[in-house]
Amino acid sequence: MTDIPPTHPRYESLVRRERLVQGFKDGIVVPQGLIAHGRGEMFDYLLGERTTKEGRAASRAAAALLLKAKRPVVSVNGNVAALCAEDVVRLSQAAKARIEVGLFHRTDERVTKIEKMLVSHGASKVLGFLPDANIPGLDSLRGLCTKEGIFSADVVLIPLEDGDRAEALSKLGKKTIAIDLNPMSRTATKATVTIVDEVTRALPELIKNVEELRGDARAARLALSSYDRDENLKLVSKSMADNLKSFIDR
Amino acid sequence: MTDIPPTHPRYESLVRRERLVQGFKDGIVVPQGLIAHGRGEMFDYLLGERTTKEGRAASRAAAALLLKAKRPVVSVNGNVAALCAEDVVRLSQAAKARIEVGLFHRTDERVTKIEKMLVSHGASKVLGFLPDANIPGLDSLRGLCTKEGIFSADVVLIPLEDGDRAEALSKLGKKTIAIDLNPMSRTATKATVTIVDEVTRALPELIKNVEELRGDARAARLALSSYDRDENLKLVSKSMADNLKSFIDR
Repeated sequence: MTDIPPTHPRYESLVRRERLVQGFKDGIVVPQGLIAHGRGEMFDYLLGERTTKEGRAASRAAAALLLKAKRPVVSVNGNVAALCAEDVVRLSQAAKARIEVGLFHRTDERVTKIEKMLVSHGASKVLGFLPDANIPGLDSLRGLCTKEGIFSADVVLIPLEDGDRAEALSKLGKKTIAIDLNPMSRTATKATVTIVDEVTRALPELIKNVEELRGDARAARLALSSYDRDENLKLVSKSMADNLKSFIDR
Repeated sequence: MTDIPPTHPRYESLVRRERLVQGFKDGIVVPQGLIAHGRGEMFDYLLGERTTKEGRAASRAAAALLLKAKRPVVSVNGNVAALCAEDVVRLSQAAKARIEVGLFHRTDERVTKIEKMLVSHGASKVLGFLPDANIPGLDSLRGLCTKEGIFSADVVLIPLEDGDRAEALSKLGKKTIAIDLNPMSRTATKATVTIVDEVTRALPELIKNVEELRGDARAARLALSSYDRDENLKLVSKSMADNLKSFIDR
């Protein structure tokens, strides 16, 4: 990895970029994933590169939904694996969720590499290599999934997910938890709960909330009942628009 | 190229992404170019992925400036070549402009590949492979250019240009025409005329305007005199902020 001085004002963002480039060199990230990351970086910039109040509220609602779920699944793609494989595994353990690799640009080789990476970070089982089901409404490769995992899940966590896949999962009746930096994306506006936050900040926050709410059914219910996705997205967008305006007026 | 279903709501954006990835595989685009493209995508998203009124006004001013120029040059980098080599050649013919390859991450190999690509799309001559001059204020590799091209140009079109290079060209007394999706970038705020538009939409629009204004000196003068860069950039930024806000009000 390139040496980035920890004093650099955008140190964490640059380290994430390096991690993604490493994932790309390792064959885990596709070039399209680098582009998508650049896009996310700009939204994160507008967000102030921090977890907002709205992000925290959405994260608590997401934790409550995961705890209520009978068959929760975490869907993992190349960017997520490259950025935060370890936190994916920790979350799957905290929320007793299965892990399934789900790729927009699917190749068996890439699925295997991502699986290996997750296993090396402690995952005991990773689904996705041998798909035996299909998400309706997606073309064949993109819709591949497993019966044991996503197909029979009631709640699916979809960090950095493509809009087509996110929408198809909703149509299939799944409750979905999106982690997405674009509050206007189809993924963000269609998920049951949407956390607008950068994924390496969002996962530790979500793990913390799962642990906090596990023993507290009342707090969990409240976290979910007080969460309003559209209102939450509006507040996030407003804070981005305010940041944009403050740039214009400078 | 990956098959993207033409029914995908963001089909054109995804096709551009694929073209860039192809350019990357061909050694024309660098990884930094992929991330930069992602940042641009986000601004295009805020712009509504369309050519705006402000974009059209800037394009007419740019066309007028090109027509007035004695030695216009189009500067081409890897992303531009990958996205729209053909339109670069068409514009250079319409505006009687030289083409010069100018790279932030320069290698002879990459210059050669971009040159070949432009020639394969009909360019009769491409400058840049044998630089014999330097743009002052840039470190040696980044400042390389040719006396026949950029160094002696009066007007330089700089699509998707790095801020350092854009600024150095202005300081050298060149009039510059930027095509840049970030209205707040140094490139955008320092160029003589800045077209805030996606480059594959902006080039055909610019070609059309060059052809329309060629026989109409009066209209060309008006296009240029009525153009106010800072005002134009403010209006574009405002429309981006409004798009974010309109999402909020939905």
